[in-house]
Amino acid sequence: MKEKEFLQEVKEINLLQQALGILDWDTQTGMPEKASAYRSEVDSYLYSIYFSKKIGPKIKEAIRYFSEHPEELSEVGTSVFDKVKEEYDLEHRVPEDLMRKYTAAVSSAHGQWQKARETQQFSDFQEALNQNIELTKQLIPYWKKEEKTDYDVLLNQYEPGMTVEILDKVFDQLKEGILTIRRTLQEKGTEPETDFLNRIMTKEQQKRFVVKVIEQLGYDFSRGRLDDTVHPFMTGINPNDARITTRWNETDFKMAVFGVIHEAGHGMYEQDIDDKYAYTPIYQGTSMGIHESQSLFNEIIVGSSRSFWKKQYPFFQECAEGTFDDIPFDKFYRSLKHTQSSLVRIEADSLTYPLHIIIRYEIEKMIFNEGVDVAELPEIWNQKYEEYLGIRPTNDVEGILQDVHWSGASFGYFPSYALGYMYAAQLLHSLQQEIDVENVLASDDYSPIKNWMSEHIHQFGASRKPNQLIMDATHEPLNPQYLIDYMRELYFNVYQVK
Amino acid sequence: MKEKEFLQEVKEINLLQQALGILDWDTQTGMPEKASAYRSEVDSYLYSIYFSKKIGPKIKEAIRYFSEHPEELSEVGTSVFDKVKEEYDLEHRVPEDLMRKYTAAVSSAHGQWQKARETQQFSDFQEALNQNIELTKQLIPYWKKEEKTDYDVLLNQYEPGMTVEILDKVFDQLKEGILTIRRTLQEKGTEPETDFLNRIMTKEQQKRFVVKVIEQLGYDFSRGRLDDTVHPFMTGINPNDARITTRWNETDFKMAVFGVIHEAGHGMYEQDIDDKYAYTPIYQGTSMGIHESQSLFNEIIVGSSRSFWKKQYPFFQECAEGTFDDIPFDKFYRSLKHTQSSLVRIEADSLTYPLHIIIRYEIEKMIFNEGVDVAELPEIWNQKYEEYLGIRPTNDVEGILQDVHWSGASFGYFPSYALGYMYAAQLLHSLQQEIDVENVLASDDYSPIKNWMSEHIHQFGASRKPNQLIMDATHEPLNPQYLIDYMRELYFNVYQVK
Repeated sequence: MKEKEFLQEVKEINLLQQALGILDWDTQTGMPEKASAYRSEVDSYLYSIYFSKKIGPKIKEAIRYFSEHPEELSEVGTSVFDKVKEEYDLEHRVPEDLMRKYTAAVSSAHGQWQKARETQQFSDFQEALNQNIELTKQLIPYWKKEEKTDYDVLLNQYEPGMTVEILDKVFDQLKEGILTIRRTLQEKGTEPETDFLNRIMTKEQQKRFVVKVIEQLGYDFSRGRLDDTVHPFMTGINPNDARITTRWNETDFKMAVFGVIHEAGHGMYEQDIDDKYAYTPIYQGTSMGIHESQSLFNEIIVGSSRSFWKKQYPFFQECAEGTFDDIPFDKFYRSLKHTQSSLVRIEADSLTYPLHIIIRYEIEKMIFNEGVDVAELPEIWNQKYEEYLGIRPTNDVEGILQDVHWSGASFGYFPSYALGYMYAAQLLHSLQQEIDVENVLASDDYSPIKNWMSEHIHQFGASRKPNQLIMDATHEPLNPQYLIDYMRELYFNVYQVK
Repeated sequence: MKEKEFLQEVKEINLLQQALGILDWDTQTGMPEKASAYRSEVDSYLYSIYFSKKIGPKIKEAIRYFSEHPEELSEVGTSVFDKVKEEYDLEHRVPEDLMRKYTAAVSSAHGQWQKARETQQFSDFQEALNQNIELTKQLIPYWKKEEKTDYDVLLNQYEPGMTVEILDKVFDQLKEGILTIRRTLQEKGTEPETDFLNRIMTKEQQKRFVVKVIEQLGYDFSRGRLDDTVHPFMTGINPNDARITTRWNETDFKMAVFGVIHEAGHGMYEQDIDDKYAYTPIYQGTSMGIHESQSLFNEIIVGSSRSFWKKQYPFFQECAEGTFDDIPFDKFYRSLKHTQSSLVRIEADSLTYPLHIIIRYEIEKMIFNEGVDVAELPEIWNQKYEEYLGIRPTNDVEGILQDVHWSGASFGYFPSYALGYMYAAQLLHSLQQEIDVENVLASDDYSPIKNWMSEHIHQFGASRKPNQLIMDATHEPLNPQYLIDYMRELYFNVYQVK
């Protein structure tokens, strides 16, 4: 087999994936509501072609041949081969029958979860969740490489190289750091006013503002687009097509403004990978955590910067057509960084957000490594909220039923959100050694920031693992102290802690 | 082979077609501008899977088997089999090499046509057009069944059963009819005022009006959607997904208002086919002519009705927010049906429109049946415009370069537009025997019209040929006199000819 032949097969798999990507984007944006049954059939048929190629004879033969003749692969070919082999190993071992059961369970669990949200009863979801957990446990032996614990196997699927050992330490430190900051704010801080944040700003006004902002940040609309959806996401179809989506709330501009800036961070990553990886599985973000580091860098690091808002506020006021003319800049800026305990993760502010993740991490670890009884989970959930955030859900919808992830058996995914945030702060620290970030954000030209990210993160796509990227870019492994220091400085400033 | 197995293969082919349909819709609506090269690769790969199944071993075997055992097929199975066999016969005979040449020529001709439009020189397109013609001539023998002439073969591809013999007669009669009406209007008619038609109506205002109108006509938005595009079209993906598109002109509301009503006619047809044909090639319009009869029934028959506009005008005025408040209804209505000679087909009014088609028909016939020299075509084109419409193009862009069809080698397609118009008038005549159409259009409930179309046309999809549908619905073959009579009455009324 020649490298060319191998890459052609990889390309065909990628072309099918692009088609599936567009279909999925369409399903989640504007597909007519009654078309979903037909769409499922198209999706599963196309997926079956895609999957049977992915574990098909050509890939099998390529793995056999190039495992013996790695020297015949170019640099790009080697990256692609490693990735393809990794995915093949994960997928071809699983017995078809088990995979079918798993897929069916996940699909039915989603419906059960939706139903349980209507009845507000975890008990209506419990059986389906239990199924998802049991089948995932059956899959773990097939997915396992050298991971120490079952939950490590799941973490690894979203964040290669991540372990319970690392996360336990990192999350303990992070939790302590946040709780300490929160105590100080409570004792010595001055809470910002926020009563004007719910003033009406129309979708058109918000859109005018945020489209300009993300263009300035470096999102390229000639290679992307922005659409409305229910659950916002970014989808990278190919190097010239990375689409973002959002939802709008006219009495809470923060939702779409920060939401779009967040998705644009994902989009900029995908638009910025080296073209030489096009049509291969290297043309994607290397992990959920690194992807999230880019979206959160945009949303939180840039979006919390006083200099950034100082520069943007006049344009924001202009877009709001008078609605915020009576709010002086400082008052406006401080309102954006108001923090308080809340029950729902996706509505949490940037100080309390990691606590929501840590709770989920601890529960997932209990499920997979400690054999906790699923029936006990709602109570465990509620207790942890009370302990870490001082508030307790009054029903399961604002408690354990709030997230879609477990209905999709996406166990091990949640930590990515907090990892992304820690990576973002650590990257900021390194970036600041080279560039005066506040100065750049006060200027008309944000390109030095994007160029730095491009050089250290984006260009590599999935050709380097997350830990290697972070090590190369920041010269040390994941270190949560950067995020703690960052949050302390930011919130002490906003809350005027002397 | 069992019918079930045959229908499963047909379904898989249909699922691929649905995917291709969404990709094409995306390409023509909102795909990022720089994504087109990547998209082409996805399209051609998916198309190659689709096409190789369409002429693949399973279909081949089904044709062999069921040709010998037609009694084993159900009613639906028989319709599907006939259609599949018809398409197979058309496609599998063509030598691959010739098809490749043809595809390449068509693709390059489109670029040449665009270039020629920029330089306004037919000579820049002549060579490419000649190639398209030559390769089409080479294909005709492979496509030929019992047609008498080469051009008959091409007509048959878009309108099964249509012949030069029929069209020569029909078009002569139609041409004479239109020219006579035009003479009378010129001698005795009073021209409507139109100076207010270009008043600004925003996209939002137009959209509010036309969305409501097509919903009333029977277009179902829960199984469709409306998007912006450059060249408006309808695409039927599946029974619950028939999408329409339009472009908007704020100083010419007629473009989008009538454009959307037109596309909704196509969409209503596709939404209304019997579900039992889902996932088969029977689930589509039976011919371009019948499809056009439905869009033109909406756009012209309904859209020219005085009762319809009398009812809708107050809502139109409301949507226009004051812009047309000073225009009395009669003045407004008459302005819509103003007629005058024009050079560009897609801007032509409903009286002169068929003359544009007849010119193209005559020229195509000269190309394929009379061996005319391609170099002479611009002059022939201009002469015919002078003869039939009394005006002469001053350059090739407003002359022979105006339509995209020949660059795509879609020879034989143009007559469908005029056929659709004649069918629409003939269907109206039959409909009027059963229903007081003007009365229905004056009411709040247009459903009797849609129900009639559904019963006589829509439900059958491609299971009946156009001539059979027209015969069953109107009890006679295509008869252009209905259109002539319709136009005479309408325009004499508008032009106040006593």
